[in-house]
Amino acid sequence: MKINQFAIAPMTLADEKKELLAIHFISQADLQLTSHRFLHRLLQQSFPEVTSTEAADGKLANLLAAQQLDARSLTEISADIQPLHILNLYLQLLGFEAGQDFQLDAPEKMAANVNLPKFDHDSLNNADLLHAWYQLLITHTTTGQTFLDQLASRGYYHRLQASVKLPQPLFFNGKAQPVFDTTQLIHEVVYVESSQDSDHDGLLDLLKVEITRPAESNLQPVPVLYTASPYNQGTNDAAGDALTHNVNVPLTEKPVTASTLSDTSKQPVQLPDPRVVNGHTDQADEIFGNSFDYSLNDYFLARGFAVVYAAGIGTKESDGLRTTGDPEETTSTIAIIEWLNGKRTAFTNRTANIAIDANWSNHHVAMTGRSYLGTLATAAATTGVDGLKTIICEAGISSWYDYYRENGLVIAPGGFPGEDADVLAEETFSRQQQAGDYSRVEQKWQRQLAAIKTGQDRDTGNYNDFWDVRNYRKNAKNIKADVMIVHGLNDWNVKPRNAEKLWRAISGLPINHKIILHQGPHIYINNFRSLDFTDMVNLWLSHELYDLDNHAEKILPDVLIQNNTQIESWQAYPDWGATSNPTAHYNLTTKGLSTETTSQETVQFDDQLDDSNFQQYAKNNAQWQQDLVKSQSPLAGHRQIFQAPAQTDTLVIDGCAKLHLSVASNQPIGLISTELVDLGSFKRLNPLPTTLARQAMVLGYHYRKEDLREFQLAKKATPYQLISKAHMNLQNRTSLTQVDTVKPGVTYPITLELQPTHYQLTAGHQLALIVYATDFGMTVRGNQKITYTLSLANSWLELPHL
Amino acid sequence: MKINQFAIAPMTLADEKKELLAIHFISQADLQLTSHRFLHRLLQQSFPEVTSTEAADGKLANLLAAQQLDARSLTEISADIQPLHILNLYLQLLGFEAGQDFQLDAPEKMAANVNLPKFDHDSLNNADLLHAWYQLLITHTTTGQTFLDQLASRGYYHRLQASVKLPQPLFFNGKAQPVFDTTQLIHEVVYVESSQDSDHDGLLDLLKVEITRPAESNLQPVPVLYTASPYNQGTNDAAGDALTHNVNVPLTEKPVTASTLSDTSKQPVQLPDPRVVNGHTDQADEIFGNSFDYSLNDYFLARGFAVVYAAGIGTKESDGLRTTGDPEETTSTIAIIEWLNGKRTAFTNRTANIAIDANWSNHHVAMTGRSYLGTLATAAATTGVDGLKTIICEAGISSWYDYYRENGLVIAPGGFPGEDADVLAEETFSRQQQAGDYSRVEQKWQRQLAAIKTGQDRDTGNYNDFWDVRNYRKNAKNIKADVMIVHGLNDWNVKPRNAEKLWRAISGLPINHKIILHQGPHIYINNFRSLDFTDMVNLWLSHELYDLDNHAEKILPDVLIQNNTQIESWQAYPDWGATSNPTAHYNLTTKGLSTETTSQETVQFDDQLDDSNFQQYAKNNAQWQQDLVKSQSPLAGHRQIFQAPAQTDTLVIDGCAKLHLSVASNQPIGLISTELVDLGSFKRLNPLPTTLARQAMVLGYHYRKEDLREFQLAKKATPYQLISKAHMNLQNRTSLTQVDTVKPGVTYPITLELQPTHYQLTAGHQLALIVYATDFGMTVRGNQKITYTLSLANSWLELPHL
Repeated sequence: MKINQFAIAPMTLADEKKELLAIHFISQADLQLTSHRFLHRLLQQSFPEVTSTEAADGKLANLLAAQQLDARSLTEISADIQPLHILNLYLQLLGFEAGQDFQLDAPEKMAANVNLPKFDHDSLNNADLLHAWYQLLITHTTTGQTFLDQLASRGYYHRLQASVKLPQPLFFNGKAQPVFDTTQLIHEVVYVESSQDSDHDGLLDLLKVEITRPAESNLQPVPVLYTASPYNQGTNDAAGDALTHNVNVPLTEKPVTASTLSDTSKQPVQLPDPRVVNGHTDQADEIFGNSFDYSLNDYFLARGFAVVYAAGIGTKESDGLRTTGDPEETTSTIAIIEWLNGKRTAFTNRTANIAIDANWSNHHVAMTGRSYLGTLATAAATTGVDGLKTIICEAGISSWYDYYRENGLVIAPGGFPGEDADVLAEETFSRQQQAGDYSRVEQKWQRQLAAIKTGQDRDTGNYNDFWDVRNYRKNAKNIKADVMIVHGLNDWNVKPRNAEKLWRAISGLPINHKIILHQGPHIYINNFRSLDFTDMVNLWLSHELYDLDNHAEKILPDVLIQNNTQIESWQAYPDWGATSNPTAHYNLTTKGLSTETTSQETVQFDDQLDDSNFQQYAKNNAQWQQDLVKSQSPLAGHRQIFQAPAQTDTLVIDGCAKLHLSVASNQPIGLISTELVDLGSFKRLNPLPTTLARQAMVLGYHYRKEDLREFQLAKKATPYQLISKAHMNLQNRTSLTQVDTVKPGVTYPITLELQPTHYQLTAGHQLALIVYATDFGMTVRGNQKITYTLSLANSWLELPHL
Repeated sequence: MKINQFAIAPMTLADEKKELLAIHFISQADLQLTSHRFLHRLLQQSFPEVTSTEAADGKLANLLAAQQLDARSLTEISADIQPLHILNLYLQLLGFEAGQDFQLDAPEKMAANVNLPKFDHDSLNNADLLHAWYQLLITHTTTGQTFLDQLASRGYYHRLQASVKLPQPLFFNGKAQPVFDTTQLIHEVVYVESSQDSDHDGLLDLLKVEITRPAESNLQPVPVLYTASPYNQGTNDAAGDALTHNVNVPLTEKPVTASTLSDTSKQPVQLPDPRVVNGHTDQADEIFGNSFDYSLNDYFLARGFAVVYAAGIGTKESDGLRTTGDPEETTSTIAIIEWLNGKRTAFTNRTANIAIDANWSNHHVAMTGRSYLGTLATAAATTGVDGLKTIICEAGISSWYDYYRENGLVIAPGGFPGEDADVLAEETFSRQQQAGDYSRVEQKWQRQLAAIKTGQDRDTGNYNDFWDVRNYRKNAKNIKADVMIVHGLNDWNVKPRNAEKLWRAISGLPINHKIILHQGPHIYINNFRSLDFTDMVNLWLSHELYDLDNHAEKILPDVLIQNNTQIESWQAYPDWGATSNPTAHYNLTTKGLSTETTSQETVQFDDQLDDSNFQQYAKNNAQWQQDLVKSQSPLAGHRQIFQAPAQTDTLVIDGCAKLHLSVASNQPIGLISTELVDLGSFKRLNPLPTTLARQAMVLGYHYRKEDLREFQLAKKATPYQLISKAHMNLQNRTSLTQVDTVKPGVTYPITLELQPTHYQLTAGHQLALIVYATDFGMTVRGNQKITYTLSLANSWLELPHL
């Protein structure tokens, strides 16, 4: 078990002492004790469950400082306290089992896997012990949290606060501590009046906001974690399924155009006047019970942060209509921040017009959440709205075109063929769940849905005005908030391009920005055992929202990437996909990918399958993906595979590969798909993390719990792993916004930029490029009789690497 | 969606009114309102989130009483309030979506699926509305709990208790309400001194107990849910795996004996004196943080019950040694009850000998939990210990022989080949996790493990003294506690025989007993949407532990069985597997199972497989099971399948099928296995329930949550389903405790009693009996050259049915 910690703030011994005194882990008097009595004190403090010394001694007797020497005895004998003793106790306190996870005669061997203190002399004194215990408190246990966080969950602060008034917030090693009373959280609802009338009912939209905050915020304002989640008030899954588009439709020829964008600017909209405020109150009118929970948010509630969820326009108990990511939705997203920042009106309910201020907010807001939630965090940041100090954007969309389209093609998010902007709008239009409300807005909603359907234009897949206003990156220059991006390198739902292009767009801005890339698909990572992600976010937010000078911006690596070749391995890098990366040049040849030879031949593949294979793959996309890579499969003749020789040493691909092809279609239409894969029978990381221990992470004393998870190596070897992919409509070969004619039989040069990645191809693995047309998981599936011809002489792959 | 409720207590209108007044849902003054204003009041009370009438009116406007008529308008117009209006509102309040789940013009059609009030006149008055709302409150929502429980989770009692002092406990419709403050739960640890010294250290064993109880129990004692869980303090999974026995070993001939039991009675043991009590206190010395949670227990914490977990002898921070179910473990299990009942000493810690009483306990204890936990509940009940009022035994073992053995064979629990009593002892000996404690007890433990290994006697599989003392049913007559059994009819871990034989053993006792049989394997069922299991337990425990005269014993069906042929279907029966059931007689013939003809032929099968098949099945038990049933498979010739004609109408198998065989082995050893299966390509229930909605069941206001689950029909047809099975060592053909010689070539009559079941075989399905030897999932796998010969003339199947 290897535990990687990146959020440890370096401290001097003097500061370590100061902080241990501040959390009352030691007292000044303790420092005067003999080292044996001081050790006893430190050990006793490590069992916050017990109050009496007798009870503590029972616990101490169950720890071994060495073979035949338990901790209690160690504190009672006169012999020296040795590094070995302390390391053994340290590891046991962290949850490692003597004899199983480590050996009592060589605990120092664990230094490669866990943060251990170093000692340069044999007989340890109080300063050594103090340093060791400070390190112990900030080191991760075997259950994914620091020992101090674990002590808190075992009652440390709970017991302490019965007799001592601790500062709130309280920071230790730069991170906010769980000293706020989670049993007395306040849950309240307000309705923010936005500056929009998206349902055109003559009234500004009211937006429901669910607030959870420590009761202590009544005395002193706290910062806010705000999660904008359109799913938060429920979803219309059946209605969404019903709207899902048939993807077994042909690719059609689309009209030629020099630009898919129009240059008409939108008319300014006349807005209704704000409601007349009938009065002010400090007292909310509404509470709420069950709600969407993100355990990372819950973790911060115990640490002096408020948590706010809002679902936005068109959701249950809010006004307005869903738009799937247009500027209206951004407006509704930032309205909440404006209220939290004291610059907008909210009401206690939807009718009485009694205003209520967020006077419990310190006006510092961070946005959190994954997927659509992270998307709206990005959208909000690109407005430069005041009060938004940082966003933690997990698996967010930075341009909706990159979610539902690619290079002039309709390209589904992985796992959701036939989904589109209209489907998602319908799914999230939770006003529909309330028959009374829906009956009043149904006609407008059907018109809106029709407009989205028209705007998204599945017929062409073009990057038109509809998509252009949903490209947040156009406004990246407005971003003032610091940005932390988290994305899965194997996320085929929100593809990595969304993260990479945002990362590039903000790289030159005068803000702090960090990115964490993991090996998962579309998941949260705050419950991994091998990474102190939660601590990293704590360090970051303590800095961003409490203005704590903890050097988070320097301590946290700018780029942190999980290794794909081994478990529990995370590495810091200066950049991801830097444009200055060298590139390897692989020619496409009849003998595979080659850095040396070229081929002058042409090769062909035909897209049409016999009906039974087609039907099977249409039902079972996973089977299609497997067969696509297999050399012998029903897809032979329907794709071209170019294999490189097996690697003799490690190649670290970093950034966006580019595929240059010379290609002809025998029809006036055509699409090209490509996959870059890692071939070879090896045990790779599982696609999803394994739950190691249910409910093992405890976020506070008898507070919220979380499963502990980790990527593990597959028990069986797999034949390949997908590295990256890309798709292009041949009519869009010139540019994204230009549509050309495809003349049957004419060979065109095209360039596909594959999804960005960071992938270690180790010795023995074999790189392969597959060129094909219909992608059963993502493109339309016309099963048309189209033959593609590749001229190999002018076809090559450019591979950026470290 | 069909919701089955069995815990609804029938009420008179007068009682309904009384209870609605008692929970302040209505006031006496409300009853004087006009029906329209009374309806407004009832509706407003249905939105506990809001305080003001303005805010409530906003919510009301979102409900439709009819097309074009929202609830708010209904309360303001003069037209009659009609049944249609109320049913529409009722269904929407329960979470059903108008237009989707039901139609606004015909809500009464939902009466088949959900508890709806009936009205015999058109214009509803206050009495009608009162009755409707009472029924609404006790009816299940779409998220698996009563509407009143949902209101509680939305803040109903939380808000009410800010101004009104409610009685604690408070009952509604016979069930305890969540009116205890879950934010102020007390968590404490005590050490009960047991009347045993199972680790022979000269001191009576101290047993760690973790108590969670409402703070209100300091004022008035509360009853206790006690879960004895050997897993509760951690498990040694790796060490257990290391001990797991190789099952690829031959079946061997065992010595002939007239009885596998000895008649030597055990010597009485000389026990150490109890510790001298140094003092008494009311104040616990130790708290605890994270702990094992069973959400059913948590549900009751909010309702005025304490919850106690203890792991027993040999677990972390307790004394003693693990035994896997012997009387020592039972003694340690009931020691906790004796303390809770005021009849035993506990100490605040392990050293100071300061006694602490459970003066917060009302001396009424129920035991809960599944698997080993339910097993220990059964063990405790068979002692007749005072204070134990009832056990809710979920998937419990009633005789350990039935868990690890069968008819003279080692038979693994499904999914755990090679596990045995010693493996489980090692896994649960969590004292091992503390190096200091373990170093002092290691030698004794290794001796104990060796003794268990000898005692369990894998070499013979005999029912010997070791197993006899682990057969709780021998003491069933001592049971004084009422018993509720819950078991999965597809539980191949703790097999249904454990439930059925316990059920039979207690049937004649002067206690109340109930049994619930579901279609799952080894799972909990308190989060099913289709069944009000939690309410049933609430009704039961309010009666058992609070002595509430709610007629639980009459209201709850004695036998409740989930239907295997359709989703969401539960039916009450007078008994399960009654000995008076008629039986069908099927002859084994060369043409299959026949009720009409017989065969005089013999048929054979050979147990030995070629090595590659053997290796594959040994690694992949699921593949073996599939191939066993398939007519064409590598197992042809290695088993005999007897198919009955397809059913022309439904046959309800109920109880234990018996297979009478005349069988010869060509070796001096032999084992016979049999499976009864349901053949035919049909969509059957999935083996496991599906999670319908994560964290959708909320057990109190911002308290514990639970996923909502339900069995669904498989999306694809499956070729068969296992109904039951059995195994026998031919040396045990005479009786369980007699071992005979098997003479090669001699035909012996044997009778196998299959696991009990309740199974509906509907038209088109085909019953099949498979006779074979090695069971790759359960028996040893010797792959020996043994040929079995069945004489069909004297072979038949007896099938009990309704």
